[in-house]
Amino acid sequence: MTSFAGTPAPPYYAVIFTSQRTDADDMPYHVMAERMLELAKQQPGYLGVESVRDANGVGITVSYWQDLESIRNWREASEHRVAQAAGKEKWYECYQARICRVERDYGHLDSSME
Amino acid sequence: MTSFAGTPAPPYYAVIFTSQRTDADDMPYHVMAERMLELAKQQPGYLGVESVRDANGVGITVSYWQDLESIRNWREASEHRVAQAAGKEKWYECYQARICRVERDYGHLDSSME
Repeated sequence: MTSFAGTPAPPYYAVIFTSQRTDADDMPYHVMAERMLELAKQQPGYLGVESVRDANGVGITVSYWQDLESIRNWREASEHRVAQAAGKEKWYECYQARICRVERDYGHLDSSME
Repeated sequence: MTSFAGTPAPPYYAVIFTSQRTDADDMPYHVMAERMLELAKQQPGYLGVESVRDANGVGITVSYWQDLESIRNWREASEHRVAQAAGKEKWYECYQARICRVERDYGHLDSSME
């Protein structure tokens, strides 16, 4: 995981993406996922990401955004749309995306993680 | 993971809990985590949970709730408060909780996962 996301004070937005990977070859998947992360970071309104996948191929990725417009722009970015289609066709058995408004947050962060 | 959460049509609420486990003994942690899940399921307003932890001990658990009051009640449940204190003291190097309003969702779910 890319460590904890250092998000600003709420409100901001989150996309919770839960997915089950298929058995399809991991390597090209990782190349694509890395590329998407790199692109997302360049998007206006991007705040951070947290991502975990377990040994059974179940993953949760939460990306954080300044507003709904940033999420919409990222969703419609052309290279991302190609990746979304590949995800649906090849990489994910199933997935669920949820778009949320973060209203409150609290935590206990080690300073090395911030 | 307990599979995908079968949540109703939005709006509903989510608690995104990101954590880094300490090296402390896994077994009692799992007993506590299972017990908390069992208790959460009995809470009014509980809708579901999705939880993943990777081999490095980084986890994301998202629990879904009908409204903010359900989240508040769960957070203040006495046995849960004891677990929260143990989590802070012993189980988690660090954690971050975010309380969100889910405004929209979409997905591609295999019927066996619903």
